[in-house]
Parts: sequence; structure tokens; C-alpha cells
Amino acid sequence: MKYLFVLLLAGVTVGAQVKKEQLNLMPWPQSVVLNDGNFTLTKNFKVNITGNPNSRIFGGVTRFLRRLDNRTGIFFEQGFIAKLNEVPNAELQINCTKAGKIGLYEDESYHLDIKSNKITINASSDLGALHGLETLLQILQNNSTSFYFPVSQISDFPRFTWRGLMIDASRHFQPVDVIKRNLDGLAAMKMNVFHWHLVDDQGWRIEMKKHKKLIELASDGLYYTQEEIKNIVKYAEERGILIVPEIDVPGHGSAILTAYPEIGSKVITLTGGTSEKNSKGTAIASYGIERNAGIFTPTLDPSNPKTYLLLSEIFDEVCPLFPGAYFHIGGDENEGKDWDGNPKIQEFKKKHNLKTNHELQTYFTMQLVPMLKKHGKQLMGWEEILTKDLSKEAIIHSWRGPNEGVVAGKSLVDAVKKGYKTVLSNGFYIDLMYPIASHYLNDPMPKGANLSTEEKAMILGGEATMWTELVTPLTIDSRLWPRTAAIAERLWSAEEVTDIASMRRRLETVSFRLEELGLTHIRNKAVILRNISNNQDIKVLEEFSNVCEPLKGYTRNKDGTEYQMYSPLTLFADACTPDAKDALAFDVVVTQYLANKSAANKAKVTSFFNKWITVYKDLTALGANAPLVEPILPLSKKLNDASQELLLVLDNKSTLKSEDLKKLIEQCNTKDHADVELSVYESLKKLL
Amino acid sequence: MKYLFVLLLAGVTVGAQVKKEQLNLMPWPQSVVLNDGNFTLTKNFKVNITGNPNSRIFGGVTRFLRRLDNRTGIFFEQGFIAKLNEVPNAELQINCTKAGKIGLYEDESYHLDIKSNKITINASSDLGALHGLETLLQILQNNSTSFYFPVSQISDFPRFTWRGLMIDASRHFQPVDVIKRNLDGLAAMKMNVFHWHLVDDQGWRIEMKKHKKLIELASDGLYYTQEEIKNIVKYAEERGILIVPEIDVPGHGSAILTAYPEIGSKVITLTGGTSEKNSKGTAIASYGIERNAGIFTPTLDPSNPKTYLLLSEIFDEVCPLFPGAYFHIGGDENEGKDWDGNPKIQEFKKKHNLKTNHELQTYFTMQLVPMLKKHGKQLMGWEEILTKDLSKEAIIHSWRGPNEGVVAGKSLVDAVKKGYKTVLSNGFYIDLMYPIASHYLNDPMPKGANLSTEEKAMILGGEATMWTELVTPLTIDSRLWPRTAAIAERLWSAEEVTDIASMRRRLETVSFRLEELGLTHIRNKAVILRNISNNQDIKVLEEFSNVCEPLKGYTRNKDGTEYQMYSPLTLFADACTPDAKDALAFDVVVTQYLANKSAANKAKVTSFFNKWITVYKDLTALGANAPLVEPILPLSKKLNDASQELLLVLDNKSTLKSEDLKKLIEQCNTKDHADVELSVYESLKKLL
Repeated sequence: MKYLFVLLLAGVTVGAQVKKEQLNLMPWPQSVVLNDGNFTLTKNFKVNITGNPNSRIFGGVTRFLRRLDNRTGIFFEQGFIAKLNEVPNAELQINCTKAGKIGLYEDESYHLDIKSNKITINASSDLGALHGLETLLQILQNNSTSFYFPVSQISDFPRFTWRGLMIDASRHFQPVDVIKRNLDGLAAMKMNVFHWHLVDDQGWRIEMKKHKKLIELASDGLYYTQEEIKNIVKYAEERGILIVPEIDVPGHGSAILTAYPEIGSKVITLTGGTSEKNSKGTAIASYGIERNAGIFTPTLDPSNPKTYLLLSEIFDEVCPLFPGAYFHIGGDENEGKDWDGNPKIQEFKKKHNLKTNHELQTYFTMQLVPMLKKHGKQLMGWEEILTKDLSKEAIIHSWRGPNEGVVAGKSLVDAVKKGYKTVLSNGFYIDLMYPIASHYLNDPMPKGANLSTEEKAMILGGEATMWTELVTPLTIDSRLWPRTAAIAERLWSAEEVTDIASMRRRLETVSFRLEELGLTHIRNKAVILRNISNNQDIKVLEEFSNVCEPLKGYTRNKDGTEYQMYSPLTLFADACTPDAKDALAFDVVVTQYLANKSAANKAKVTSFFNKWITVYKDLTALGANAPLVEPILPLSKKLNDASQELLLVLDNKSTLKSEDLKKLIEQCNTKDHADVELSVYESLKKLL
Repeated sequence: MKYLFVLLLAGVTVGAQVKKEQLNLMPWPQSVVLNDGNFTLTKNFKVNITGNPNSRIFGGVTRFLRRLDNRTGIFFEQGFIAKLNEVPNAELQINCTKAGKIGLYEDESYHLDIKSNKITINASSDLGALHGLETLLQILQNNSTSFYFPVSQISDFPRFTWRGLMIDASRHFQPVDVIKRNLDGLAAMKMNVFHWHLVDDQGWRIEMKKHKKLIELASDGLYYTQEEIKNIVKYAEERGILIVPEIDVPGHGSAILTAYPEIGSKVITLTGGTSEKNSKGTAIASYGIERNAGIFTPTLDPSNPKTYLLLSEIFDEVCPLFPGAYFHIGGDENEGKDWDGNPKIQEFKKKHNLKTNHELQTYFTMQLVPMLKKHGKQLMGWEEILTKDLSKEAIIHSWRGPNEGVVAGKSLVDAVKKGYKTVLSNGFYIDLMYPIASHYLNDPMPKGANLSTEEKAMILGGEATMWTELVTPLTIDSRLWPRTAAIAERLWSAEEVTDIASMRRRLETVSFRLEELGLTHIRNKAVILRNISNNQDIKVLEEFSNVCEPLKGYTRNKDGTEYQMYSPLTLFADACTPDAKDALAFDVVVTQYLANKSAANKAKVTSFFNKWITVYKDLTALGANAPLVEPILPLSKKLNDASQELLLVLDNKSTLKSEDLKKLIEQCNTKDHADVELSVYESLKKLL
């Protein structure tokens, strides 16, 4: 055993002293004290567990051992741990006083104490202990020959009790392994809620034994079996994560109504023909699974008793799959167009004295409260469910902002002022390709809102949302990670932890560590680029991707109809990510150069230009045998042209008129090519 | 839609004419005729299905469309296909006369006819049509702007009816997604049998509802639920693949006996104490899940009626999960040590007139035949089950060869001579890291064995075996692919298709296409190297991996005890593969140079030496912050030292004595470092 031998020898080497600002902890703990000295890792390292933890701690520790030996190559003698107090003299002692309960408000705190010959994790619950193990994995250091933990004391607990991620499994189905590896990612980032968006216009994703049509007609065969759901719930519980399922009603109803058109709101007037006649001389409209993105009219009929019968039976089948106390019923983006066009529904509104469609929707929502309560579930919904008659038990999920024409987070404050618990997602739309800093600084606790202590306590936390209009199993991890880790820090760490430079630095290592868990955000980029390159060398594509970012917000998929749900998402934009690596680096050297035009500073700037000129040349060569390179070439040419000229400008050799130079730079401010934008445009402008 | 626009324009471009030897088809079809002209792919491309196929064809065509649009970036209008004759005027017409049956001897032939404006696939069964679609995906060509199919006619059918892969899910558990993506790989290579090795000393992997102890005590919590198994069987069926499950008995019994020690053969003599007493004054031994690799003594007791009762009940629960007609019962490597040491078993042998342990094992095996027949299953076993009294219905799985002290494939000939059907795995042990050429030339039909037509027909085909002592979900794909594709060709294509150079050339593209299916053999190499590099640049590690191969045969894990089943397999050897890329290239330039010592030829050789000198320098630098680089350095140094000196030799400047030079080269012939060997050693020697 060659590795083992080397590492045994390495065990005696003393590591260099690490500084606090060099630690790659994320989310940053509430208190970190670093002391001199190190605990050196050897193959004799063992773990012992005492106290009264939930048995999930055994799996947690076994996974911890595997991650640590996979990372270090050390052949630990301890393989599995399955019992309390199995190795009383182990170097790592974990003690939990009680079994953690999955849900809100559980004590997730832990104390990690690393001495040079002993490590202890003390936690109230095993959930805290699992968090402590993640911190221990993050604090691992190394020199050239060995791995060690720095002597330190960490006391830690979360700022918010709801630290969630939503994944939309409807628009693009996300198979079991995608969900599982992302649950691993959440646990590593000390997040504790997985909100599973299971139903939308684009598909119903839950196996139904009673209402089989939902699967047969409205899923394209892409759904989770009930066994798979139970299996995922168990997987989440083992990692301390609560699952909140969502069935989005009454809007976003295309899939449900594809299976059960009889509870839809749309009516069509009969002009003779073969449609099934109903008592009013109108016929039931037919629906289809939606293939585009956007807001669509198919909406459940709130005046039809059959609607409630079906939903009640659906909840009876779905609720028992999820032991958690919350059920999300969506409730968003119902524009009520089909309600307005349905005379029976208009009649119903009058009869029940419901003045607006919003009030009608609240009527609808209130019918669901007892259906869920029957199964011990509290109702949660997107902010549109909030009206005066809504049950105070409902949780309001705040999501709208300037893009929807309202003040960011307004509904959050409205909700707590009215006595509702609330969770913030506005500002955490991680699918929209915004820079990580914008999410990082998005605090759920509104500044200047003058909230009482009780009101503040109603703000449960926040949730990143991963809508999947343009996201497939191949790309979802690169849209989620590492950026969701910064959101995790916002939700866990102290309010004043807001240093963006520190966050960025730590995120680089965190990203790498997330790969260790099986997340594919790094490796799958190469897969896409290899496909684009047609199996040629991908180096130049990688280089170019370092200055390209996918179009942001809702601009990539104009009107929601450029891409259908089955369109290819293996394009250059799908390999690119926000916060393009070279953009930030280039901005730094430009700023340095403008402050001090030394030869050295100039050389740093020109090296970028020369790189981008080479990129264009190499991309052109690559494209000779790769049709998918074609759409990128015009963009690369624009950066090449600007670079060529700016090289002359820096040498005072440019003969271009100022306005023509401006034009050349302005050409780099384009969204016309390959669904990406050049992230260096703003920095280029500074050089004018 | 920028992509779409470009590709629409591209549609009018005429592609260059491809030559037959440039086609990257694998397995190579029985007949390929290439003509002038091309069928250009556009977004209007649609598929239509006629005839009487099994409904699996709809999923198959939908997946085909997704793979084609993901690869080409073309936004096909056709999203899903769910009905016969949906698009009568579609450009691709598929016609199947009948529904394919999963199993042996089904007609899997197809005719693919590509004209410049129409493509047709005619097949007897949908299984043949699915093969035709794979060929169509492989024959896709491109120029700089568009994708097209060359006008051609392909007629194709398999040479052998059993074209299998075995995966050992016991030694290292392989989760559902690993199995599924490998089933995709098998289907792409026109393989039709997945042999699932589910039970061995290292773990029982099938959820059991009646005999829960097998899971509770003998699985470490790593097993397939019955729902998952059904789901995988369905997944395989949709891809035309038969699943043959294996429960290995009576040897390899550690896991079963951990749960049910009372049916074990080992007895311990009581010297007082607390063990459960039995009537003979001996006690039942206790067993544990095996953590090492090798052949172990735990064996089921063939004299104990409880053994057969348990097995019968196990088969009653497991057989219905697998609709296929075959069940593999292992039967290998039972050395009978515990039988020899058990007086009750010795008595039983006498009573039943069983002279040898081998005869006793046949007695045991024959008890299983009716248990399986009850469920419509034929018994299959490793070659050791073959003795004179064995039922002629059993299928003999030939696996032993020189490593086991017997003539390669001898049992295959023995079996057919005695009237048994047989499948060859000797020579297809893909886990042993042998060069691909050795597997490729391993024909199941023995040369010079003088077999009759009937006897030849008893040779069903062959099966690659992936034993997983040293293979994890992270690495399994790189151990299987692309090399299994060459075995697939051996089993499908005509006997005379044996050109190694052609196979190697095609395999490069096939490897890349397998990535498209989700196989991780390329991407996960980078994952391992990133870990070894401690998140530094992995370029130098990649370079060095191009001349390193994992130790071959059973040399990596000496005595089976260097690695436990929970030891790290994230080491340099795990990133390396057989047929190291630069080894072959280096051998070519050495051969050229020795034939003609021109300056140009010399430069080609010296460029390798200079590269390896740089590699050592860069690896040393990398190692300063990466403990896992440490074990590789001595090996890199040896290649560096040899390279330095050989540079002098080529310049006639070496002052080293011939024997010292020899020694320097001989140092490169080592297995002492990092579980890899230098694959350029033989070529280096040629330069002396």
C-alpha cells in the first residue's frame, strides 16, 4: 500500500499555521477562534458517537469518513459506524443530547473544538452535529505531504430557520439522481428546506395510483414513482432536510387539465360539432401539456365541486408521501382570464359575494386549508394568495419584485404586518443568471421597515428558486452551484457577514468541494464544450466562455417561445455561467492601469487583448469542423476587433475617430449572438 | 433564435463526400454500401412509425430525436412521438412488422436506407429498428456549418445472440443511475444482455420483504429496492435489453451467512461458552460482511434442508422481479474448505454417494433447478457447475483461463461437446485493465476446435465482466467505456472484422458519443485529477496520465487486502486507464526513428522526452500544495531520468556505461509507485 505508507510518514510533519481569513468556511460560522497548533490526520483517525442522537448520525458519520478519505487518499481503518460508543477512545468524539426533528425551529447549533490530539463536536441534536461535520470537512488544511485540522473552537447556529432551495421538476423533469446530489449540496451548505415544485403547466410529476390519467396524459412518462418520492424524502431526512412539496393551483393548470379538462374554467360556445355537450350549450375545452414558457390561461374552475373533490383526493394520496408539516399550493400568476370568460363562474362570484378574481382565488385557497389540515399540513403559497380572508396559518412565499412591477420584498413586509409567516424568494431567483453579489446582499430582514420583534420572528428565512425553463439535468448544477452557497451564507451567517471579496474567494474552494459530493457543475461544462467542439480540443471554447455570460433575466427565451421544453440546451450559453471568470480579473487590471499607467499595468491589460485576438483565430479554426461554433464567431470577432484597436489606443497608435472607436466598443454590448453577452463590455468602456 | 437561423441557412450547404473507412460505425455492420449524395438535417426533420412494433419504439425515437438535436443544436419541431403513423410524410420512416420480444434468438436485423430526401429503417422487430437508429446516429457527418447523413444502404444483424455485460453491484454498490446510464451505453453498442451480479461476500443488494435480515444485516444499507429493480428492468426492456440476475451460491456466501449463519457450513467445536449449542456439541459460526477481495470460505450448507427452504423462498421473492427466462446462480470458486471441516456434511456426502465436493455442489445446484423452473427460469452458472449430473438445460458461463491454471475457453468447448449452451467471459474481463486489443481479438467461436454446426449453435455469445473490487460509481464508466464497445463489435460484427487500427480509430469517436448518453468516463477523470491536484491546474496530471496505466490483472490489490471495500479509489491509478494515449503514439515515433534516423524523426522522439522532463518539473511544483501528488513523483522522476539520458544518447553525448543506461531504463519497469505502471517502458527499451 504505497499511498498509505507515504501518508503515515506524512503524519509526523507539522503543518504551517493557517490564518482566519484563509479558512474556506461557508456559511461563515457565528464564532471562530483559531489557536496555534494542528491536529494531523492519519489512518488511525476514528469517530465515536455518544448521547441520544437520531440514527441518521451513523450514516452521516460514515459519509463523512468516505469524503475525508476520498479527498485525502488516507486509508482509514474505520469503515462504517453503526452503534453508539463503538470506539470510546476515538480521536473525534461526537455527542448529541437529543434526536433532531426535521422541520422548523429545531436546535441546529453545534460546538466544534479541535485540539492537537482530540476533536469534539457537541450539539443539542444530531442535526447540529451534521452541520459540525460539514464545518470540519471545510476547515481541513494541508501542506505538501499531509492533511491537518487547525486547533480552533467554533460555535455556530443559524440566523434563519428556513434556508431553502426550490427546484422546478415540471418544466424540465429532474431525475432522482439530480435531486439526490443537490440534497447533498444543500446539506453541505447547512440548508434545511427542499421545496419541490412538482406540478406546473409543463407536466405532472407525481405517480398517482387513483388518478392515473395525470401520469398517462400529463407527464410525457417523466415522473417520480411514489417509491422514489419516499426514497428521496428518506434521503433528505438523513441529511436533516425538510421537503415541502408543491402542487401549483389554480393557475399553471395545463397539465392537470390535460388529464381532467372537466374541471377547467375555459368554455367554448358550441356551434354544432362533436364536442361533449353540457347543460349550458357550451362545451368543455380541451387542454394540452404546455411546451413553451410563460404565463398561460389554463385554470381550475373554483365554482365546480368536482375541482375540490379531485384536489381532495389528490392531497389524500400525495400528503402521506411527505411527513413534513408544510404543503405549497402555488397560487401564483393566475390572471383569471378563463374565469372572466365563463358565465357560470361569474354567477358563482355574485352568489358568494366575491368581488374580484383575487377574492375568488382566496375562496378557492380556503377550500384547500382543511384538505391539508386533515393530513397535518399547513398551507403555503406564493404571495398572490394573500388577501384579507386568508387563514392566518398560511405561509406567504414572497417572490415578486421590480420585474413584476412591484417593490422588491414588499409582500414580505405586508405579510408580517398582517400576521402571516413568510419566506423570501425575491432576489434569490438563481435561475436568472444574475451576479452572485446581488443574491448575496439580499437580506430577508428588510432594512428600515420598522418591524417589531414579533414581526421579525415571522420572517422565517429565504429560499433560492431554480425554475427550469432553460435548465436540464445536464446543466442544473452549474446554474445552482456554487452560487447557492452564497445564499446559504446569507441565510445562516450573521447579518454583518457581507464582504463580497471574501465570499468570492471562499466560493472558489467551496465550488471544488461541492464537486466532491457528486455535483456536476464543473465537469458538465467540459461535456457541453466537447459537444460544441465536435470532439476537438476545447481549450479555446473554455477561454472564450471565461468572458461570456448567458443572457440575464428573461431575455434569453424571448416571449417564452424561442425554446420549447424539448429544445436543445447543449449550446454555448448552457456552458457559460454568471460572474464569468475573466471579466472580474480584467476589470481589476483595467482599474489598476487607469490609476497608474505603468508599463507593467499596461502589459496586464494588453495580455487580455492578445488572448482575445488569439481566441478569435482559434475559434475560427475550430469552427471549420464544428457547426455549433458558427454562432459564436461573430461575437468573438467583435471582441477581437475591439481588442485590436484598443491595443493601438494604448500605444497611442490608433487613427480611429473617437466616435468610431466608441462604436467598436459598443458592438461588444450585444445580445445578438448565441444567447450570451460579453461580460467585459463595461470594463472596455472604461478605457475610452 | 440565433442558432436556428444559422442552421436553417446551413441546411442548403452541401456536405463533402465521406469515405467508408471514415465512418465511425461500431459495431461495424454486416453490409455497408456508400453512394454519392447526402441527406441534410434541418429543423423540419421528422420521424414516422408504421407497422406493428412494441410501444418501446416511441420512447426510442423520442430519445433519438433528443440526442440528435442535443448534438446538432437544431431545434426540431417534433418533440415527442407517441402514436403510429403520426406524420405520414416524415423524412424518416420506420417500419417494423412485429413487436420484439426481449430474450435470445429474436430477429434484431434492420435495413437502413438513406436517400438524399428520405430515410427508411425497415426491421422485422422494433429491436432491430432501435439498432438502426443507433447506426443512423453514428453515421451523422458534418462540415463547418451543417450536419448530414451520407446516402447509403446498410443491412445488419448480429453474429451472436448473447452480447452481454455483467456488473458486480456487490463489492462496490452501483446506484440506480450508474446502472441506467450503462444500459444506455449497452443499447448504443447493440448489446442485449445485462447480467446483474447482485450478491457476493461483500453484500446482499436486493430488498427482501420476507427475509429482511439480508438487508438489515448484510447490505450496509446499500441495496436496490424492489421498485428500483422493477424500474431498471423496465428501463432495460425499453432499450431491448434482457436482464439476467445473479445470486451467487453456494460459495461467496459471507453476506447471506451474515444474515443466516444457521445455513452456513462452518462449525466450531464448543469449549464451553455462550454460543448457541447444537445437537452435535458444536456451535454455529458467526459471519461478517467481507471487506477484502479474494476467495473466502463462507459457504452454504448443502446438507441442511433449511438452506433449500431459504433459497426457495428467496427465489420466490426475487424471480418475479425479473421477467427474463434466465437466472444465474453463480456457483464459482467454492473450495469446499468448510465442507471438509463439517462432519455432518461429510456424513451427507457418504449417504448420497457423492465422492467429491464437486459432486456435492452438483447435488446442491440440481436442487435449485426446480425452484427456478417453477418461475419459468433456466439456470445459468459459472463453469464450475458443469459436472456429469448437471441438467442439460443449464447454461455454462465459461470464465477461467491461464490465470486460474486452465486453458482459456476450455470449459466452453467442454460444455458444447457435452450438449450444454454456453457463454464466454474468459478474455472479456474488462476490469483487469488489459489492452483493448486483447479483448477485441477474443472470439467466442474457438478456432480449430472442430465443432459441428449444432455445437457451434450452442455457443450463444459472450459477456464482458466488470468486477468491482476496485471500482466505484465514480470510476466504473472509465473502466467499462469505451473498451466494452470493442467487445460489442466482436459479438455483433462478422468474424473477419479484426482490424485493430480501424477499431482504435473508430473507438475514439465512439467514446465521445458515449459521453452524449451520460456516461462519465471522460468527465470523471478530470474530477479525480482535480482532487489529486488539490484544486490546482490539472494539465500536468493529465499529461502524466497519458503514459501511466493502472496495474493489470490482480496485481493492484495484492492478496486482496491492500484495499478494503471502503478504501479511497480517488487516486492517480483511478484516473488512469489501459491503452494510455501517449504510449501508442510514442511507440510509433520510436519505430519510425529506428527505421530512419532522420532529424525529423529524431525530433518527434525527443519532443516526448522533453515533455516528460517538463512533466516531472511541473508535478514537483504541483506537489508543493497537494499531498496526493507525492506518491507519483518517484515514478515521474524515473521517466525524467531516463528521458534526460536518452536525449544525450540520441545526440551521441551520453557518457553512461551501457549497463547503467540499461538500469536507468529498467527503473521505468516498476510497479512500486501509486499503483500504476509506465506504459512507455517497452518502447524505451527499443532505443537501447
